[in-house]
Amino acid sequence: MNSGLREHIEKIIPLTDVEFEHVLSHFILKKFKKHQFLIQEGEPVTFDFFVVSGLVKSSHTDEAGKQHIMQFAMEDWWISDYQAYFSQTAATLMVDCIEDTEVFCLSLENRERLCADLHKIEHFFRKKSNSGYIALQQRILSLLNSSAKERYVKLLGQYPSLFQRVPKTLLASYLGVSRETLSRLSS
Amino acid sequence: MNSGLREHIEKIIPLTDVEFEHVLSHFILKKFKKHQFLIQEGEPVTFDFFVVSGLVKSSHTDEAGKQHIMQFAMEDWWISDYQAYFSQTAATLMVDCIEDTEVFCLSLENRERLCADLHKIEHFFRKKSNSGYIALQQRILSLLNSSAKERYVKLLGQYPSLFQRVPKTLLASYLGVSRETLSRLSS
Repeated sequence: MNSGLREHIEKIIPLTDVEFEHVLSHFILKKFKKHQFLIQEGEPVTFDFFVVSGLVKSSHTDEAGKQHIMQFAMEDWWISDYQAYFSQTAATLMVDCIEDTEVFCLSLENRERLCADLHKIEHFFRKKSNSGYIALQQRILSLLNSSAKERYVKLLGQYPSLFQRVPKTLLASYLGVSRETLSRLSS
Repeated sequence: MNSGLREHIEKIIPLTDVEFEHVLSHFILKKFKKHQFLIQEGEPVTFDFFVVSGLVKSSHTDEAGKQHIMQFAMEDWWISDYQAYFSQTAATLMVDCIEDTEVFCLSLENRERLCADLHKIEHFFRKKSNSGYIALQQRILSLLNSSAKERYVKLLGQYPSLFQRVPKTLLASYLGVSRETLSRLSS
């Protein structure tokens, strides 16, 4: 049972069976129901999560009680509150399930141990971090200089399946527009 | 002559003299005058830059001609258009000098070679990438849910020296406010 994790890692580095078993032994498989929390704001962040199946989102609730969506994650994506995870501080984001979800959980201690043990795993995580950085840079640019329409068209082009699976209200929040604006854009 | 680079790397990993000489041999030192470009939009991105002295900014110009500032970088900071650098595509950002600036330049080929040669350099760049990711996550959250006043106070607290060195017009652009709003905030 590897549930996509091996194929996912092997897109970047080849692994022998023994190496993959070693890697896998550092993960814990967990199941969550729709609406359950993987991370709660204010709590310690124990894990980085690799989504085996399902759909989750990370978000931040501001002082006025408004929810801002940082990221969605579905099969083969990673998600956590990385600031809290890497610095071992309390979460400023929450991560919760939009669908029933199965995740592989990796503690920071196990991640660092794997990276120290296997140079190629350190390489894998460096590459993933670079990709994540680029995705956030794109998100900042789109927040700074794209219209809602442009952000909508881009997201639809990149991740058409998100539009089937994510409720419109959450998509609107991610795009930074009202539910009504989103309806206009998608009609 | 190491100009801060060795101390910077050794904050994360120790290096022997021989290792540091090996690392350094992969960098090129370049000097730029105020207003010169390190990266121009539409051009290939050859280098990641470590700032030895001076001050630069990265920015994006939208279709209406408005400039949006992504990042500043001063001594001991890294800057590039990482999307273009890592994927070897044309720049969507420009990087130019606010002051006369000296940088260590690292090509992608040399970066990958160093990471393959020395596991601890791969570790160093993974850690730097994680830190960069966290900084961008913070920037997104502040764009989504902080007021201009909050963004101003936070930036001032984190990088007081920026306020001495960066023209007010550029600070306003970074914060996403008008020059007049910034004057009100800083008075």
